[in-house]
Amino acid sequence: MSSDDPTRAPVCILGLGLIGGSLLRATTAKGRKAFGYNRSAPTVAAAVASGHDASTDLEATLRRAAELGAVIVLATPVTALRAVLPAVVEYAPDNLLTDVVSVKEPVTRLIAEHHSRARYIGGHPMAGTSESGWDATDSTLFDGAMWMLTTDDDTDASDWLTIAAIALDSGAQVVPAAADAHDRAVAAISHLPHLTANATAVVGAGESDLALSLAAGSFRDGTRVAGTAPELQRAMLEANSTALLNVLSETIDRLIQARDELRDNGTVEVLVDDGHRARKAYEHIATDTRQPITGVTVGAPGWAQELRRQAHQARVWQG
Amino acid sequence: MSSDDPTRAPVCILGLGLIGGSLLRATTAKGRKAFGYNRSAPTVAAAVASGHDASTDLEATLRRAAELGAVIVLATPVTALRAVLPAVVEYAPDNLLTDVVSVKEPVTRLIAEHHSRARYIGGHPMAGTSESGWDATDSTLFDGAMWMLTTDDDTDASDWLTIAAIALDSGAQVVPAAADAHDRAVAAISHLPHLTANATAVVGAGESDLALSLAAGSFRDGTRVAGTAPELQRAMLEANSTALLNVLSETIDRLIQARDELRDNGTVEVLVDDGHRARKAYEHIATDTRQPITGVTVGAPGWAQELRRQAHQARVWQG
Repeated sequence: MSSDDPTRAPVCILGLGLIGGSLLRATTAKGRKAFGYNRSAPTVAAAVASGHDASTDLEATLRRAAELGAVIVLATPVTALRAVLPAVVEYAPDNLLTDVVSVKEPVTRLIAEHHSRARYIGGHPMAGTSESGWDATDSTLFDGAMWMLTTDDDTDASDWLTIAAIALDSGAQVVPAAADAHDRAVAAISHLPHLTANATAVVGAGESDLALSLAAGSFRDGTRVAGTAPELQRAMLEANSTALLNVLSETIDRLIQARDELRDNGTVEVLVDDGHRARKAYEHIATDTRQPITGVTVGAPGWAQELRRQAHQARVWQG
Repeated sequence: MSSDDPTRAPVCILGLGLIGGSLLRATTAKGRKAFGYNRSAPTVAAAVASGHDASTDLEATLRRAAELGAVIVLATPVTALRAVLPAVVEYAPDNLLTDVVSVKEPVTRLIAEHHSRARYIGGHPMAGTSESGWDATDSTLFDGAMWMLTTDDDTDASDWLTIAAIALDSGAQVVPAAADAHDRAVAAISHLPHLTANATAVVGAGESDLALSLAAGSFRDGTRVAGTAPELQRAMLEANSTALLNVLSETIDRLIQARDELRDNGTVEVLVDDGHRARKAYEHIATDTRQPITGVTVGAPGWAQELRRQAHQARVWQG
């Protein structure tokens, strides 16, 4: 009972935490058939109590996905993928797969290792809060968010359009990127900010309770993501260790230069001027309405390269 | 024409930027006589247009402060204090002074240097935004904010109560502290977060426009204060260079340890666990209702030491 239009295929979501659960809510709200699995009975009970179609039975969920020709969304923490993939191979080997993990090359390798003939398009919605679990799920979590889809030269055009339709359905805009470029990018703008937030929190709290009691906006905002559950932070950061090591080393170098400049010349001019310029560049991109990617027919010769080229100019795929 | 009750004295604010201008609004709103000086004619015109009492004439403003027995609030950037203090000595040498600069030991030294017999209580309201200037002023800026007042063993009790009343009038709560302890505390929880925000912004923006276009909450919040005008950031950070060098070096050490741990063992466990614990300690202090300092009569033997002791337990002076 496959859907005729693959871009309207049912969605089977494995893992109903913040991202997976919010995707279940968002796709269901759009009238798409969606169902999910979570290994935690209380999570599944909460999802069912909210009117959603969820189960703790992985095998039954995957058999159903196979029967319906559903797109399978891997939405467990990256550390749980090894436990889930063998079941996918066994019960739903032909289904199109995507994921929502914050790192793409390691997931691509993991899938290739367990499921060599998988049809897989990597995904990463840039949305989240420092809350986690079903209680934090929200059908509007992805509204206006950027959703990266891996777009390599050998990516299947029809599969790509199917996954893009799910992202668009959830309210997001699609950013096509190569897996390695994505991993370097998120190391810089997502994983590194976790490390600097943690370091800032540690040093601030180490000073005295007087310091914490004087802490205002700069400390509150600058350390916010250190409040994310440590195991989620570690799963995310450690999975992208190669790219993260590069940007972390660069950050250490910048801070050492700033320390030397401050000690020797009493100024922090270079870091503050460069930092301010960088922040303004970000604000410009973040507040501008994104221009759509235009003039590309997905599947036509060179389509993937052209999508990536336009995405590097901060354009987005809007369908 | 001095006021009879010194805690209701008029307030003369030198500098009508975000902090000084908001204080003019807040104290006026409380029915206290307040007037200000700014060297920029457009700023003064804007303040007057909002119904406030402001002038570009420093000499006249200070003569009036002397005549009224007003408390003078030094609210210029720290770098402009050298230009303002000689006029204070000349036209209002007997007036009680306070300031709102984010660093206390250097300001105390500067005042001692220019005005050896000054009556001075240092102040620092922990409030601000990345906006600046009169347009950003807000009479509610200090509502619930912590306002540090220097409280040393030789602090004059009556002067301290007069400045504390201004802080309380503005909606803030008073945190008594020694000047050096304050400077170490703000280096840790205010000045350091500016440096880590700037470094995070530089490295994130250096990666690619793809990175900036994927940037979401962690980058947005973690780099927010890098958007503050560079000259304001530099004035604040460079004035506190000794304390800032210490916490910056500690931060670099923590990040180097994290890099080594990630490179050698593939984990960021130590930094993430410690950072998460530190953030939770901060959230506990920040969200708890502050307990009031109790059992102290300002002016009684040992009062300053006792206020500081209770402030180190995150208690606040509420009048």
